Amino acid sequence: MSELSPYLESVAKEIDRMIDRYFVDKAGELNKASAHLLAAGGKRLRPAVVMLAADAVKHGSSDDIMHAALALEVTHTFTLIHDDIMDDDNLRRGVQTVHTKWDMPTGILAGDVLYARAFEHICLAKSTDEAKVKAVQMLAKACADICEGQHMDMSFEHRTDVSEGEYMEMVRKKTGVLYAAAAGIGAVLAGGNAVQVKALYSFGLNTGIAFQIQDDLIDLLTPSEKSGKDRASDLREGKQTIIMIKAREKGLDLLKYRHELSEADINTAIKELTDAGVLDEVKKIATDLVTASNRHLSLLPASRERQLLMDIGEYFVTRSY
Amino acid sequence: MSELSPYLESVAKEIDRMIDRYFVDKAGELNKASAHLLAAGGKRLRPAVVMLAADAVKHGSSDDIMHAALALEVTHTFTLIHDDIMDDDNLRRGVQTVHTKWDMPTGILAGDVLYARAFEHICLAKSTDEAKVKAVQMLAKACADICEGQHMDMSFEHRTDVSEGEYMEMVRKKTGVLYAAAAGIGAVLAGGNAVQVKALYSFGLNTGIAFQIQDDLIDLLTPSEKSGKDRASDLREGKQTIIMIKAREKGLDLLKYRHELSEADINTAIKELTDAGVLDEVKKIATDLVTASNRHLSLLPASRERQLLMDIGEYFVTRSY
Repeated sequence: MSELSPYLESVAKEIDRMIDRYFVDKAGELNKASAHLLAAGGKRLRPAVVMLAADAVKHGSSDDIMHAALALEVTHTFTLIHDDIMDDDNLRRGVQTVHTKWDMPTGILAGDVLYARAFEHICLAKSTDEAKVKAVQMLAKACADICEGQHMDMSFEHRTDVSEGEYMEMVRKKTGVLYAAAAGIGAVLAGGNAVQVKALYSFGLNTGIAFQIQDDLIDLLTPSEKSGKDRASDLREGKQTIIMIKAREKGLDLLKYRHELSEADINTAIKELTDAGVLDEVKKIATDLVTASNRHLSLLPASRERQLLMDIGEYFVTRSY
Repeated sequence: MSELSPYLESVAKEIDRMIDRYFVDKAGELNKASAHLLAAGGKRLRPAVVMLAADAVKHGSSDDIMHAALALEVTHTFTLIHDDIMDDDNLRRGVQTVHTKWDMPTGILAGDVLYARAFEHICLAKSTDEAKVKAVQMLAKACADICEGQHMDMSFEHRTDVSEGEYMEMVRKKTGVLYAAAAGIGAVLAGGNAVQVKALYSFGLNTGIAFQIQDDLIDLLTPSEKSGKDRASDLREGKQTIIMIKAREKGLDLLKYRHELSEADINTAIKELTDAGVLDEVKKIATDLVTASNRHLSLLPASRERQLLMDIGEYFVTRSY
């Protein structure tokens, strides 16, 4: 995986440059609000997946489709801006959220502007019109699914009986489909055939779901100093994560932790979950997804880029923040 | 204009059928919320413009691009759902607004789902991929502009010195560009050349602006029984409409009407505005725009559909509700 970090850094640098050019340097208050979160950093993982998928299909094609890579980051950011309004969150990526720095109407509009720009940038990729239409369709389908996933996630807040199937469906839509679209769009714009596009789409879907499951583990296991987030917030809020669901299946009731938690409380919960085999099982679900996603990639010829995609999957489920 | 009404009715019927099929008959609470306002009726004017523009370029082509006609109505509805949240309006088209019938997060997501569906339906039109990419680009640009227009409109609420130029820019973006996109998308999907597409785009832009100016007149002049709306609400709220701006240019201060208004108050205001020539001047701005839009249409060969487009422009500035 030693190659992955410098690769991701170079992608982030390039995407940051495009964000400056096409978003930050634009006049007007609404454009400022739209650029705010986009310019606040981030790992730019979705653009990296777009570019690697393209290069895995046709070496060197990623240069032509940088606009599509940017489009995926823009789409992701629009969903974050709207999610922050719905959840009324104040901070994101170390900066004030758009609707708190400006106001709710500006937050809605800032997200809506990015939504439009994402489709504009997809169309700016250098590819055939046939491929661009397919890319637009994939992106639009992903956006509709993300809304559905966010709606499911919110509806879970009022429930204590979410099943593993429901959770997986929610995560597939809320997180999986955008990684799937990232890989699929990269493949289709690079001229990939139907089999290649489907393989990369499935790779993205599986690793995207694994990414979210790892997020659930990080919330519990990674100290705040390291993650920069409030530790065990899911536990404290009684959130229906895969950990909560798997624990319930084994007769453990994590809802008793739904209160302010000391370090000792969190350690007790971790011990309980470890002893019951919950954490191992959740980790296995994530790693099995990555194994499955690698099987999809085996349809493609071996290449540096295919290896980097596998490395991204591996990174998704081994990262601790 | 005797042909226009039955034509618009037949378009509305067809679009309503598609709305039932692709939106109303879908399961799930979020889909219900998305379909709610879409199914609440409306004149379906933007779909009619898409279809007439297509047929004016190539007779009979509108059948192939019904999905694009639907896409324009879906886009319009998404902007209404989000606008209602920003303005916290309770009623629209005689039904509860989405965010009041459900809640604010569901309203945001319902609009976001329609936003995605609009792009999906554009791509379902039967046309060349080249034309579809252009149509997607036009729709995306229009969406970004609409957000900018809504943002300008909201910023005007805190001001009493909006100029005619600023007003026209706001209306161009908030209302004009979607009619422009409707006509331009119809033309491009029907295989129109660059000159035809541009002519129809300009037609839509001018008539769309005229439509909004007429709305400002209707707010003041049409009795509530007829319009179904709260009469003279712009005057009562001190809104920076073209009437307010033109009155200010002539030394009349309409801000004195910023309070509860009796029938007599409204009549006094109308007399004052008529005597100063404000209403005639505003009407002339609207009719001049329609004249200009007809000049754009003269680039197309004479046809029933070209005449119906001219009739729509005429209807926009003569309707009293």
